[in-house]
Amino acid sequence: MNFARMKKRTAAIAALAAIAVTMTAGQASAEVTTESAFVFNTFAFLVHGVLVMFMAAGFAMLESGLVRSKNTATICLKNIALYSVAGIMFYLIGYNIMYVGVPEGGWMGTFSLFYNPGADELALINADEATAEMVAKVADTGYSVASDWFFQMVFVATAASIVSGTVAERIKFWPFIIFVVVLSAIIYPVQASWVWGGGWLAAMGFSDFAGSTLVHSTGGWAALTGAIILGARKGKYGSDGSIRALPGANIPLATLGTFILWFGWFGFNGGSQLALGSALDAAAMSIVYVNTNLAAAAGVVVAMILAQLIYKKVDVSLALNGAIGGLVAITAGPDLQNHFFAMIVGGIGGALVVFAVPIIDKMKIDDVVGAISAHLVAGIWGTLAVGIFGSGSIVTQAIGIVAIGVFVSVASAIVWMILKVTIGIRVSEEDEELGLDRAECGMEAYPEFGKGSQTL
Amino acid sequence: MNFARMKKRTAAIAALAAIAVTMTAGQASAEVTTESAFVFNTFAFLVHGVLVMFMAAGFAMLESGLVRSKNTATICLKNIALYSVAGIMFYLIGYNIMYVGVPEGGWMGTFSLFYNPGADELALINADEATAEMVAKVADTGYSVASDWFFQMVFVATAASIVSGTVAERIKFWPFIIFVVVLSAIIYPVQASWVWGGGWLAAMGFSDFAGSTLVHSTGGWAALTGAIILGARKGKYGSDGSIRALPGANIPLATLGTFILWFGWFGFNGGSQLALGSALDAAAMSIVYVNTNLAAAAGVVVAMILAQLIYKKVDVSLALNGAIGGLVAITAGPDLQNHFFAMIVGGIGGALVVFAVPIIDKMKIDDVVGAISAHLVAGIWGTLAVGIFGSGSIVTQAIGIVAIGVFVSVASAIVWMILKVTIGIRVSEEDEELGLDRAECGMEAYPEFGKGSQTL
Amino acid sequence: MNFARMKKRTAAIAALAAIAVTMTAGQASAEVTTESAFVFNTFAFLVHGVLVMFMAAGFAMLESGLVRSKNTATICLKNIALYSVAGIMFYLIGYNIMYVGVPEGGWMGTFSLFYNPGADELALINADEATAEMVAKVADTGYSVASDWFFQMVFVATAASIVSGTVAERIKFWPFIIFVVVLSAIIYPVQASWVWGGGWLAAMGFSDFAGSTLVHSTGGWAALTGAIILGARKGKYGSDGSIRALPGANIPLATLGTFILWFGWFGFNGGSQLALGSALDAAAMSIVYVNTNLAAAAGVVVAMILAQLIYKKVDVSLALNGAIGGLVAITAGPDLQNHFFAMIVGGIGGALVVFAVPIIDKMKIDDVVGAISAHLVAGIWGTLAVGIFGSGSIVTQAIGIVAIGVFVSVASAIVWMILKVTIGIRVSEEDEELGLDRAECGMEAYPEFGKGSQTL
Repeated sequence: MNFARMKKRTAAIAALAAIAVTMTAGQASAEVTTESAFVFNTFAFLVHGVLVMFMAAGFAMLESGLVRSKNTATICLKNIALYSVAGIMFYLIGYNIMYVGVPEGGWMGTFSLFYNPGADELALINADEATAEMVAKVADTGYSVASDWFFQMVFVATAASIVSGTVAERIKFWPFIIFVVVLSAIIYPVQASWVWGGGWLAAMGFSDFAGSTLVHSTGGWAALTGAIILGARKGKYGSDGSIRALPGANIPLATLGTFILWFGWFGFNGGSQLALGSALDAAAMSIVYVNTNLAAAAGVVVAMILAQLIYKKVDVSLALNGAIGGLVAITAGPDLQNHFFAMIVGGIGGALVVFAVPIIDKMKIDDVVGAISAHLVAGIWGTLAVGIFGSGSIVTQAIGIVAIGVFVSVASAIVWMILKVTIGIRVSEEDEELGLDRAECGMEAYPEFGKGSQTL
Repeated sequence: MNFARMKKRTAAIAALAAIAVTMTAGQASAEVTTESAFVFNTFAFLVHGVLVMFMAAGFAMLESGLVRSKNTATICLKNIALYSVAGIMFYLIGYNIMYVGVPEGGWMGTFSLFYNPGADELALINADEATAEMVAKVADTGYSVASDWFFQMVFVATAASIVSGTVAERIKFWPFIIFVVVLSAIIYPVQASWVWGGGWLAAMGFSDFAGSTLVHSTGGWAALTGAIILGARKGKYGSDGSIRALPGANIPLATLGTFILWFGWFGFNGGSQLALGSALDAAAMSIVYVNTNLAAAAGVVVAMILAQLIYKKVDVSLALNGAIGGLVAITAGPDLQNHFFAMIVGGIGGALVVFAVPIIDKMKIDDVVGAISAHLVAGIWGTLAVGIFGSGSIVTQAIGIVAIGVFVSVASAIVWMILKVTIGIRVSEEDEELGLDRAECGMEAYPEFGKGSQTL
Repeated sequence: MNFARMKKRTAAIAALAAIAVTMTAGQASAEVTTESAFVFNTFAFLVHGVLVMFMAAGFAMLESGLVRSKNTATICLKNIALYSVAGIMFYLIGYNIMYVGVPEGGWMGTFSLFYNPGADELALINADEATAEMVAKVADTGYSVASDWFFQMVFVATAASIVSGTVAERIKFWPFIIFVVVLSAIIYPVQASWVWGGGWLAAMGFSDFAGSTLVHSTGGWAALTGAIILGARKGKYGSDGSIRALPGANIPLATLGTFILWFGWFGFNGGSQLALGSALDAAAMSIVYVNTNLAAAAGVVVAMILAQLIYKKVDVSLALNGAIGGLVAITAGPDLQNHFFAMIVGGIGGALVVFAVPIIDKMKIDDVVGAISAHLVAGIWGTLAVGIFGSGSIVTQAIGIVAIGVFVSVASAIVWMILKVTIGIRVSEEDEELGLDRAECGMEAYPEFGKGSQTL
């Protein structure tokens, strides 16, 4: 298997094997022991998982900053709700579909409920006295089952976070939550099983290190279909073809959100090395960190320069989305061995965002925060870039992009349409005018400030 | 000893012993070495301690978002002040009362000043050439003295943070700080010594893994007595029994604060495993992470569903407090070996918050941010739940809850009353009307926004 | 070599040597193996580097909170731009000037482009089967090349962040970015090579553990020269000598920023131990964490008490700057072996800020956020304090302070002057009045709030 996420695990196991061999040769004391490797790998999952978890706060702040104040409390609610729901659904059935019992080259794992700690781990924890055999049995597995679950869970939540920004300011709360249920329980796990679960795309050699396609484009396709089926916000597009800017209410929060995403992305990409228990893994992980940072930085700089050239002003929201575009682009291949290539990949990611935002607007697809440009467009580019700068084949990369794009789009469209014709997905015109905060959330985000204030 | 926090340390030491045994058997090279275990344990304290430290920012943002704009700068000041004061007092005398020289089954440790690095560690650091014996002497202790102090210190600060939110918008600044001095120097350390110091409640078998009772209920009792003695905010309760909502000024900040708390809670609960230097500890810590996340998620979902059923709208502040209720509830027993039980514990924690908030309001106890519901009520539930789902006895758990509740309430009430009759604890009616920011803090939080603005 | 940053690396290598010796003696199994030490050291660089990276968000929020709303989007933009640009320039040439080929006792390293992963690491990563020799070759280097680059890079960004706050609200965007290019590519690396690169100040025995002088004073000098050459904001100083307060628009964001800085500072100082792979390093790192926290806490408490005594009110911005002053002061010597001395160093740092802020204002040097007081003045104090409480010589410390101060000031002044006479550094009076957000950034930070709002 030569696709990134699994390859690395294989590498880690190979390293363990190498140690075993070495130990026989009597040089063991210079190496990482099996149990130390277990601790390193497990702790890396936990630390990196926590960083990715915090990206939920990043999305919440980014979106809070880019919606209008009358819809801000609602977007806060959606963000904490979706993070919660995604985790629960991934626990209930998602993880099993994605990882458990995926046939080699297959299309999905098993439908089974819940996912609990490994029996050997519990036996070790519950033993009155742990024997060396019990320790070895656990240590040989490479990492704790629960730490892996935790790390994978936060990725599902990220995919769901991408959707909420695009469809903000006019979607009903509960239908949105139901969509997140299906996305995190079924749609995300099925397509992710094709690659990270060892399914058919993995067998073809499709490579997506940390999820430019599996996480970011998946979120992006779900957002795109949602935006189309939902329609644009009232007043966004004039009948004369004009496009009206509906500026976000709180730019510092959007900036904070972007910084939090950048911060968390070291966990997203660095943790996707999937192992820390050897010099090889530690060195490879370090390269991933550096590439991640340089790609994001290049995304910002390129977006700023283009904004200056095109618009004669540097729009801060383009700089922020440039960072995200750079980060998304490098996510499929942050293990590039020349850092300069990472800058190129990220810089192009930033440029694509600058060009994609007005194009999507001209297509009258109303993406409140620019998530389709930053996550879907840059995600496609980053996945292709693995075929250019990395070890992947560009044809295989393209096949994976199309296959996952078609599956996620069709599946999402079906869910959005069913919701639309049953309980409805869009708030009434009056509620949209009034703002979702008063209509759905029962409170205002900033009751003392601004034009929407009750108390002024 | 079968209470959580100490048991785990015992487990870690047992694991070290197991290694020693194994080494004799010539299989040492597969195990974590004593010095590596020291590094793992120490680094886990540092990393998790930093996460808990950041919870101070979480409380600051949560409270900043839930007070009115005229009191926002003051709540910011109180939060950075209390974190600072709590750390200094814990250094000056608190840690020694809590941990140093607590008689087995006793009631408190020693009154002695300061707490400095261990002599063996300093000898190792200062040696021109470290000998294997010097290294072994340090490594055998299991973890660095300073890392443990750091990790315990941030827990005191958390208890103090809980108080500030409840008594906001009408308490004087310096009396509040004096209360924090006593709380962190004496009240918190004394009751914590009963359990984590190895005192009488520990001897009885009372179990509180990371502090549902020791940290959260303690903060909650101190807040409750403060709220009663201080009285409600002007205009909160009408003479006709009516309750007036005084909505917070900045919901995105409250949301951010909740996400930061959730993020930090992985350090709070995960770090309370107290060791990382073995496969057993790494596996147990991973289970704690997963349970912590699922409990919080269940708290959010249950709170949202109840809010929809009861109020027909999903109040975002209930969802946020649902997360906190879930987190507090799981804190006494995040080592549950079936993740589903963690969801039940957290979900009930979220439900209790939804029901407790209006009840406390009907009792005319004015809790500005809902901290009594989220920290005290959910903390009691979580501590009892250890007797239901975990290994504890529900009777012993109840004894611990009552003993600590009585001690903290009485001690806090005495301090609040002394402050009230001497320097006074409540600002004047004019200052309350004007807002604490202008009255006490000398500046406004948002001078350009809203109705309180000088510059409009 | 007896200067802090290098000494620690020497200590780490000494520890490795000690292990090698021990192994010969047949006791190897109790020690950290060479490869485990490599993983510990590398992971410590990554984790601490990520914490320091997040300080960029801290500066962004601190500055966003302390400028007026009409300049807030621009300061957000500057902060994400400077972090990006600093990282790219440090990659392009800065790191090589600072670290590569600095002659012992010399004045700078090499002018060479780019910095890529180590050849041995790539060989290991790319090997079909890793041999024990390949692993050993990498493990013997102590840490991954890329992890070290990442950790050093985030320090440059911090120096650049300090400048942006001081010169806010009147500097043009692109000239500021050009200054950051020169600062991070040349000025910072040259002076840092004198100490951390092993240059002439290191040879003299100048000691600066994590950069009170090298990072914070360097940023401070660059900010000071910028503020003088740029001039004060319109309306800040009356012709009659009066000083007008221009209060920041969002105090909770400034508070959040300070907490984020505090959080990140554990990475800044703790990571500057530069190694984690031994009990010695883990114990030393723990002491650094505790001292860092106590110094900051003392800075807050001293600043609050002084504010109460002098102004009869506790200004929250003084408390925040007290924390930063305490943190900056301890940064040169956070390895003090008596925690009480750390409190004294930090407390004096906090006091200096309280006194320096009005003095700098009387000199009509317009420092929007107080960065000169908190970073330059407290940085000088902290560097001298190493000669008082630590192992350094106060004369040598003073020589280093002056040498770096003169170099950075002169170099910065030259750059600022060239920018001033060529493309200009200051916006027009009309643009300053209108606000930089509309003039340069093309959008408003808070379009729905406050007096600057378009939509009111």
